[in-house]
Amino acid sequence: MLRISSEQMKATFASILQKEGFSADKAASCANIFTENSRDGVYTHGLNRFPVFVQMVQQGLINPDAEPVLAENNGLIEQWDGKLGPGMLNGKICMDRAMKLAEKHGIGCVAIRNTNHWMRGGTYGWQAADQGYIGICFTNTIANMPPWGGTEPKLGNNPLIIAVPREEGHVALDMAMSQFSFGKLLQYQSEGRALPLAGGYDEDGDLSTNPDEIIDTQRLLPVGFWKGSGLSLMLDLLVTILSSGRSTSDITEAGKEFGISQVFICIKPKDQALCAQLTSQIIDYTKGSKPSDADRPVSYPGEHTLKTRVENTKAGIPVDEKIWAEVQAMLEPR
Amino acid sequence: MLRISSEQMKATFASILQKEGFSADKAASCANIFTENSRDGVYTHGLNRFPVFVQMVQQGLINPDAEPVLAENNGLIEQWDGKLGPGMLNGKICMDRAMKLAEKHGIGCVAIRNTNHWMRGGTYGWQAADQGYIGICFTNTIANMPPWGGTEPKLGNNPLIIAVPREEGHVALDMAMSQFSFGKLLQYQSEGRALPLAGGYDEDGDLSTNPDEIIDTQRLLPVGFWKGSGLSLMLDLLVTILSSGRSTSDITEAGKEFGISQVFICIKPKDQALCAQLTSQIIDYTKGSKPSDADRPVSYPGEHTLKTRVENTKAGIPVDEKIWAEVQAMLEPR
Repeated sequence: MLRISSEQMKATFASILQKEGFSADKAASCANIFTENSRDGVYTHGLNRFPVFVQMVQQGLINPDAEPVLAENNGLIEQWDGKLGPGMLNGKICMDRAMKLAEKHGIGCVAIRNTNHWMRGGTYGWQAADQGYIGICFTNTIANMPPWGGTEPKLGNNPLIIAVPREEGHVALDMAMSQFSFGKLLQYQSEGRALPLAGGYDEDGDLSTNPDEIIDTQRLLPVGFWKGSGLSLMLDLLVTILSSGRSTSDITEAGKEFGISQVFICIKPKDQALCAQLTSQIIDYTKGSKPSDADRPVSYPGEHTLKTRVENTKAGIPVDEKIWAEVQAMLEPR
Repeated sequence: MLRISSEQMKATFASILQKEGFSADKAASCANIFTENSRDGVYTHGLNRFPVFVQMVQQGLINPDAEPVLAENNGLIEQWDGKLGPGMLNGKICMDRAMKLAEKHGIGCVAIRNTNHWMRGGTYGWQAADQGYIGICFTNTIANMPPWGGTEPKLGNNPLIIAVPREEGHVALDMAMSQFSFGKLLQYQSEGRALPLAGGYDEDGDLSTNPDEIIDTQRLLPVGFWKGSGLSLMLDLLVTILSSGRSTSDITEAGKEFGISQVFICIKPKDQALCAQLTSQIIDYTKGSKPSDADRPVSYPGEHTLKTRVENTKAGIPVDEKIWAEVQAMLEPR
């Protein structure tokens, strides 16, 4: 398996983005986030997604120069306009701002409209937790999942992120509302493997573990059936209303996933020592459940991410050779 | 099927609670919430749960006289102490307070410790939505579900409620983190029916739709497997840290479900007309997905609740005759 160092990957991404019109600073920030996503094992939103990002820049759907601006205040809730800038940079700025508000008021809430795909939502949860804050954020997406009882995609998989700081490794949940993301389906498909659990429906309307069938029908299964379907709908309502932005309906109507809506909430624990103590107690208790497979102890959200980070930092980041070659070719003059 | 009018049910509950030491006011408020829960079709947390509530009052675990007090401020986040009062009354007070804060600041957040079971979490979501606010609340519970990969219950099913106001009927999600609640399992068991989908594990560790088997193993299935397990853990972390209260670990250690922790968040939409318009757009779009069963159009969270409410208000509230008789017997002198 080909492994690339963080430094090499970052430098490659940054050079390409500068060629695409990004300032040196912004190219470095974006390159850093793509690299960290792959380093943390979220390959679908690291290297593997980089070509799509560049394509969207080339199509004018993402504006490398745009900077988000504060548009309106709803009391302490801030409404920002992302001006169709890179979603990762907008996301970082919003979570930073939510932290500033939380520093002052205990809680901060920033909603942003006209922004773009933030790649891995976990990035912004870890960002808050790294500074000792609780970070909560969620986004809408283009429709990619039918609501429960429906057959046509009319809901986004609208990821929800909740991160709580912890010295030994943050507790960080990053969950999309489909049981498997589209990226995961593609990964299983390219590896010719069946899903470990039903992830959608075949053309007869039966539950299926075959990624080909699910990709054909576009009937991805919501997490927990009607429950994840409902939660996805509520998250679209919240991001759309709070940002006065575009809903999954509007985004899907436009045909391409750009100009989406997101919310960033930050909370400052009042007593850091007590917060740490309660967090440890809860994690230890949960991990104490006797595992069904003796070789696989119960883990907490974020635990595997950290393990992968340590491994990939040491050994280099594993890459899909075809995609890595494709990205390197972008360095050549067109 | 026996049906009882709201008035009769409410009067019955109120008389019993007064006998148990509740003031006339508090008895009426609690009776009202129990009745509304049954009226809305949440029988497991209406009539069916009333005897358990009375028992907990008799055991001294719920204090009828206690009133919650503001204990501390973390900036705009308020920390309340529920003083082990009735969970429904504490919940109402907290959501009211969160609305007051949202009125002033756009967002309000109230965390409460030492409170008790709020019965149906949806009650407080509808409460906020009835006043034109977005309501979000969540609670921890005694451990009743193993974490993903574990075999012993170490997580609560920690319900999450999100409600968005809407003139034609609020959009209100009320979801516990187990695929089926324990109350639902008991209901299927008493009706001798299999669950429509796997709801937990049998003693061989295989997924099961048999409520008897799942109740035996106590291995309820989290919503979306690892995802609902992770979300449940995060909600316990949030309520515990924000309230400086007891975690699922502490509650379970004590052996009885009392003195739990909850969070109530309220948001005031800045522009009510725009909020209504965006909500309608999202609901119409989602409901437009072609249904897999032509007779069952896609519904939004809260839609069936409202339908049941209208039906039960007209025809009377259907009751389990055995439980209704048991409750009526409580009116007799002991």
